[in-house]
Amino acid sequence: MTDDICRGRKPVIDLLTKSPSRCAKLIIANNVRPPFLDELLDMARVANVTWQVVSPSALDKLSGGEKHQGVICRLTQAKTLELEAFLKSLEGVSPALIVVLDHIEDPHNLGAVVRSAEAGGASCVIYAKRRAAVPNDTVIKTSAGASLRLPLIPVSNITRTIERLKESNFWAVGLDGKADSSLWDEALPERCALVIGTEGEGLSRLVSQTCDMMKRIPISAGGVSSLNASVAAALGVFEWTRNYIAQGRKN
Amino acid sequence: MTDDICRGRKPVIDLLTKSPSRCAKLIIANNVRPPFLDELLDMARVANVTWQVVSPSALDKLSGGEKHQGVICRLTQAKTLELEAFLKSLEGVSPALIVVLDHIEDPHNLGAVVRSAEAGGASCVIYAKRRAAVPNDTVIKTSAGASLRLPLIPVSNITRTIERLKESNFWAVGLDGKADSSLWDEALPERCALVIGTEGEGLSRLVSQTCDMMKRIPISAGGVSSLNASVAAALGVFEWTRNYIAQGRKN
Repeated sequence: MTDDICRGRKPVIDLLTKSPSRCAKLIIANNVRPPFLDELLDMARVANVTWQVVSPSALDKLSGGEKHQGVICRLTQAKTLELEAFLKSLEGVSPALIVVLDHIEDPHNLGAVVRSAEAGGASCVIYAKRRAAVPNDTVIKTSAGASLRLPLIPVSNITRTIERLKESNFWAVGLDGKADSSLWDEALPERCALVIGTEGEGLSRLVSQTCDMMKRIPISAGGVSSLNASVAAALGVFEWTRNYIAQGRKN
Repeated sequence: MTDDICRGRKPVIDLLTKSPSRCAKLIIANNVRPPFLDELLDMARVANVTWQVVSPSALDKLSGGEKHQGVICRLTQAKTLELEAFLKSLEGVSPALIVVLDHIEDPHNLGAVVRSAEAGGASCVIYAKRRAAVPNDTVIKTSAGASLRLPLIPVSNITRTIERLKESNFWAVGLDGKADSSLWDEALPERCALVIGTEGEGLSRLVSQTCDMMKRIPISAGGVSSLNASVAAALGVFEWTRNYIAQGRKN
């Protein structure tokens, strides 16, 4: 799958309406009919995005054989943020939650984490540039558009990034099934960097040692069962939400 | 995809070791070599399951074109439980959690819910027989084998089932983004039937009215964001776990 193409009606509409600056070009099959065609062209006009109409077979080819529902959009380079600038915007802000992903490899998992992070009120998601999933169109889809709205910050080195967050008065909390302390033993820090590991292996030793504390989600059903990385992330994010956000605004 | 076949090394091993009674026949490609071949045959002997070796192309055909890593297993009819018998086994048991799925359609979501339900200590998952995902091999895979261990109970009518659970002293709690009360306002009932709705539409009106109470998971980021059904289910399940299970056994 090509990473710089967004495919399908709902994802393209999300992109055009929420992140028009990421649209390089809209490409529509000539069998797409009104009213959807008009709707698309209207949105493209408003977003100031150029478009082209091609044959369905040409669109199949441009889409790399992936399903497209008659419309795809070429993406500009991902509009990602720079860590230092973003940290400046969070100076003195509390409560604040940052989600740090230690090499999540499956784009479905990345998308699911970004969706939960947004819903739980996180300020951003930090992810590793290499050996990890990047915010492609699978991520847009599985995040239900959240990856177009929530700031995503790529970094080269997760351990150094955690050190940097600690300097900015964030407490780094690593999630790991082998940790001694339970997620529910005490409230999470108000300024919290929640560090989530890879799907099978959890956090690397170096990353664990860099965290201020390690927490596990208590599993009830013996040693057999385990949690999906995106479910573990959601439980961590919403535990912070429960501690700081939900109580502030009763319903 | 055929629903009565389990494909791939990990899923087949899980099946042979954890639910041998569900294995009707093991079918292995003739290019599978030791030590994996010996391991498989040993497990088949222990599980008393017959096997057959076929050409890779024959296996491709039997697998219906799906990936199989050289081994598939024909499943017997799913060993599902009957509601009345299972409720008898839960008489007087408290705390106890039952997860009820109101027509979850995506087998990935069903598998993810079953995995979280097992990990959080639920007693069983009840699901609708019709117009819904059934425990096929996708569910085995996405549940990381939990669908082979946790009791799964198919029912014809979700509303009637909730009524029946209430008669057995379970409190029915529906999860819905539009509910007035937050999941964190008060502890969930000790004997709790957690009712989860379909992916887009939430709970049907009739099901909502049958529940004793409705709860929502507070979303922080405005009206745009939403939660995946399996993430919502996990947050509900682990809120009950936090209330009753985790505090009983400090780490």
